[in-house]
Amino acid sequence: MNEQVLLARAYLSRVAEPPAPGLVELVAQVGPVEAAARVLDGRVEEPVAAETGVRRAVHRPGADLEAAAAAGARLVTPEHPEWPAEAFAAFDAAGIAQLAPPLALWVRGPGRLDELCGHAVAVVGARAATSYGAHVAAELGSGLADRGCTVVSGAAIGIDGAAHRGALGVEGPTVAVLACGVDRFYPASHELLLERIAASGLVVSEYPPGGVPARHRFLVRNRLIAGLAAGTVVVEAGPRSGAQRTASDALSLGLPVMAVPGPVTSAMSVGCHRLVRDGALLVTCSDEVLEAVAPIGEHLAGAPALEAGRPTDGLDAPAALVHDALPARAARDTRWLALESGVPIGAVRAALTALERRGLVEHCEGRWRRRVAEEER
Amino acid sequence: MNEQVLLARAYLSRVAEPPAPGLVELVAQVGPVEAAARVLDGRVEEPVAAETGVRRAVHRPGADLEAAAAAGARLVTPEHPEWPAEAFAAFDAAGIAQLAPPLALWVRGPGRLDELCGHAVAVVGARAATSYGAHVAAELGSGLADRGCTVVSGAAIGIDGAAHRGALGVEGPTVAVLACGVDRFYPASHELLLERIAASGLVVSEYPPGGVPARHRFLVRNRLIAGLAAGTVVVEAGPRSGAQRTASDALSLGLPVMAVPGPVTSAMSVGCHRLVRDGALLVTCSDEVLEAVAPIGEHLAGAPALEAGRPTDGLDAPAALVHDALPARAARDTRWLALESGVPIGAVRAALTALERRGLVEHCEGRWRRRVAEEER
Repeated sequence: MNEQVLLARAYLSRVAEPPAPGLVELVAQVGPVEAAARVLDGRVEEPVAAETGVRRAVHRPGADLEAAAAAGARLVTPEHPEWPAEAFAAFDAAGIAQLAPPLALWVRGPGRLDELCGHAVAVVGARAATSYGAHVAAELGSGLADRGCTVVSGAAIGIDGAAHRGALGVEGPTVAVLACGVDRFYPASHELLLERIAASGLVVSEYPPGGVPARHRFLVRNRLIAGLAAGTVVVEAGPRSGAQRTASDALSLGLPVMAVPGPVTSAMSVGCHRLVRDGALLVTCSDEVLEAVAPIGEHLAGAPALEAGRPTDGLDAPAALVHDALPARAARDTRWLALESGVPIGAVRAALTALERRGLVEHCEGRWRRRVAEEER
Repeated sequence: MNEQVLLARAYLSRVAEPPAPGLVELVAQVGPVEAAARVLDGRVEEPVAAETGVRRAVHRPGADLEAAAAAGARLVTPEHPEWPAEAFAAFDAAGIAQLAPPLALWVRGPGRLDELCGHAVAVVGARAATSYGAHVAAELGSGLADRGCTVVSGAAIGIDGAAHRGALGVEGPTVAVLACGVDRFYPASHELLLERIAASGLVVSEYPPGGVPARHRFLVRNRLIAGLAAGTVVVEAGPRSGAQRTASDALSLGLPVMAVPGPVTSAMSVGCHRLVRDGALLVTCSDEVLEAVAPIGEHLAGAPALEAGRPTDGLDAPAALVHDALPARAARDTRWLALESGVPIGAVRAALTALERRGLVEHCEGRWRRRVAEEER
């Protein structure tokens, strides 16, 4: 990774308030290093001048990268292999100024951004969630994570927090996208939750270290939640919820929007019902969500053709161990399979995905079982 | 009304177990009197022979008509002006044997069948309703009835009963379609409810007096609930609810199907959520139901063009009284308007519908108010 490019992107990330479509366009034309130099010297025209005028003198990319490192964070740029290029291509394709892609992303945690977002669903909703909504968000979070799907959300009180916790509860992957620096804990009551997410998944932000959670940043941030996932589920939303903005961003990006119904007597379900009436897919469980973001046909499209021979031939060691651990008829959950096979839980999940692609196992109400082979039927 | 035709229809209604598509076809070809004579003599071929063979000797149309009259009921046939011919034309158009129209309908109550069904919505659902479902059904029942819309249902325990009660609670029109004779009270615990419906609306059945509520008759009966209404709302339904049959019949008849969402944690909402996922319209209140069965455009289509002059010119006396009773700015409910104007509540409702068509009043959260004229805006 070119140090100059990294410093240039860090500087631009500090200077421009997202979304900054003009600056993004300039960077695409002349590259980040030249763009940073021009911004620093004030050699830019409108709209870039307006996007960068106020903060262009704040030139402290080295200090920002050090502050990030001190917090266990790093800067991921479009020049990095882990940049989720495909996801952000949809931002460009949308051609909407408000949906300009980020100039770079500050990330904290052991996960690789592109891998985590390769199979991810956004689960979002109201801060003033009901106990029903929080329950459903946690169930969706754990159900999705248990199938190896990353749960993307905004770490807010209410639905967001419940979704993250659901994923963490099954030791599954989860990504929190913040409206402030990744070195801050916002909301403060979610300090422990954010620590846990940063310890296993990723905390992500386009705001540099120390960036404050200004009000308008929450709505701007929502486009990243929508865009980093293959689809967005709204669990609860009042009549004027920010979650509806996330849903609308997902729609603009050509991604499926789903909504969980609730009692028509609940103000917190009004937004969800409106979304369904406007065309969003009603979903009631994680299997329905997965079906919507990864239709059966797509799954099969990537599956290797079965050759003559035993269907388990050619499995890697963890997959073979997990397959052997499964009883002939009974279903078992991921945790049980890890204990029985001695394979770490993360590898068990990967193994199950591989086994499922081969048609050797199937998922059923949170557990896995062997599929009956054709000749046994 | 030709006495011979009435006796023939009464006999055929006793002889054939609905749906009897063969017999309906024969009646269409040779008329009810000739069809009845042939059935009585056994001069019919398949499938009519099979449809009528078992009970063809039970020739007691006079006694059945007398039993009906003793219970305050009468037989309505396709030859009567009050036969809802348009509704049953959809049965023929569907071309599905299971959706054969009834040969005649036994009705009990003061209502006119065609008038009641001219602007009707079916509100149906599970017997094992939750308190949430019963609450929503009652709200829909009263909301629809308050706008002059007839609530059609099956008088069962649970959702059906709550919907009827909601309509009765605002002295609104409601029709109960039974799977047994209209002289029976089934379920027994709904004796009082059925008496109230028969006192103001209509209790309807295709089964002759004394007919027992055999299990299969409930599903067969559901096609009449669906067909007599302009659309069907399912409020709560388990995974295998009879309400889904009503919904499926409505679909086959080309009528809109609506479903009320509920908690995804409730077994009683599983059927509703499945309906929405399969294409039914999600509805949360009576206004959304009315919008679906009578789109704004259609309403306007029937509205008389406003001539020059005062917009209230040409109103009939009750409508003028109701219009005068409405305060300039505040909204009032139907009951208040009846008290204030001295117009009976049924006539108030008709007047409001006429006033609404002319754009003089509008409905707002269960109440009515004057519409601000263009020049006042």
